[in-house]
Amino acid sequence: MSKLLDNVCSELQRLPGIGRRTALRLAMHILKMEEVSVDSLAKSIASFRHDIRYCASCNNLSDNNLCPICSDSRRDRTTICIVEQVQDLMSIENTGQYRGLYHVLGGVISPMQGIGPSDLKIDLLADKLLTGEIREVIIAISTSVEGETTLFYLLNRLKAFPDVKVTTIARGIGFGDELEYVDELTITHALINRREVTTNDEL
Amino acid sequence: MSKLLDNVCSELQRLPGIGRRTALRLAMHILKMEEVSVDSLAKSIASFRHDIRYCASCNNLSDNNLCPICSDSRRDRTTICIVEQVQDLMSIENTGQYRGLYHVLGGVISPMQGIGPSDLKIDLLADKLLTGEIREVIIAISTSVEGETTLFYLLNRLKAFPDVKVTTIARGIGFGDELEYVDELTITHALINRREVTTNDEL
Repeated sequence: MSKLLDNVCSELQRLPGIGRRTALRLAMHILKMEEVSVDSLAKSIASFRHDIRYCASCNNLSDNNLCPICSDSRRDRTTICIVEQVQDLMSIENTGQYRGLYHVLGGVISPMQGIGPSDLKIDLLADKLLTGEIREVIIAISTSVEGETTLFYLLNRLKAFPDVKVTTIARGIGFGDELEYVDELTITHALINRREVTTNDEL
Repeated sequence: MSKLLDNVCSELQRLPGIGRRTALRLAMHILKMEEVSVDSLAKSIASFRHDIRYCASCNNLSDNNLCPICSDSRRDRTTICIVEQVQDLMSIENTGQYRGLYHVLGGVISPMQGIGPSDLKIDLLADKLLTGEIREVIIAISTSVEGETTLFYLLNRLKAFPDVKVTTIARGIGFGDELEYVDELTITHALINRREVTTNDEL
């Protein structure tokens, strides 16, 4: 086998979800692409890794000192939504329904993986709360054991700011989910958090 | 969204089987990799595209003028196996059962896609047959309509070399395949090409 081909396949296989066969298929596709397109792909990978920064205010990925959200004057600066990772921020942004700021923890507390509170950007969050501008903190982290531990830790830290309202996103049955296949814990939460409806409601 | 992130995601999405979500997941993984590893990945992609060559004898991918197979003196130079693409060559090589040479067509005849016989490396094959060294040509191309068209074309061209034995790989039921789920055409071929067995056979 050609060393160049073997090399590109081995490198591609380091990426998650890419096995030998997929790597080979990608390599064959790369071969058919224009040289300039391939250079542009390779360059975008390298410069993303070299030049990307973290927003000094919210820890989101950013090209500059402040991310596009933190530097957008139209955003509501009284609300902060805490998320685990950048992908979660993007999922919320995609709804187009949230106009506040974010805070990206960069993970959850996980003693198993050696991630403690000091590894998350919680001090950065506390700094923002100290300004007194924030009225509400929405905690939008996963319901895993690590997520719950992190939630508990955050709630304790947030006690230092009694004027700040703390909320978590609603847990319940997703739209389109069939009750039959939803796990018991989710159904339990959905029952506990049931709400009154009238025929006037918009749902 | 960060331009660097947006850029790397868009570039990754040009690859087959990679959508927005996968591109984002790959980008996040790239972020966690060492800078030198990312550079090595980017470099391997670019240099594969720039420096790869095609074997002057069999059209296999190669780092040099001749591919490792054609330059291997231990290979049987009297047999040539014709395959559609490099991946097929690799699949056969992986069995470790074939010791002859190959010929990579680089596609199949497909009027729909504008690929005619002149686009395949058939003259290169004819040149090798003219040397008189070749005793057998094994045709190992797919059984699609295009594959059958190409087979028919090849058989016609090979008539010019009456001393060369022409074979195709056996079509039949794959090992582990359940007869119940095998298509009719394959079963028909498997029936036609049935062979006698005795208890002394190794199968």
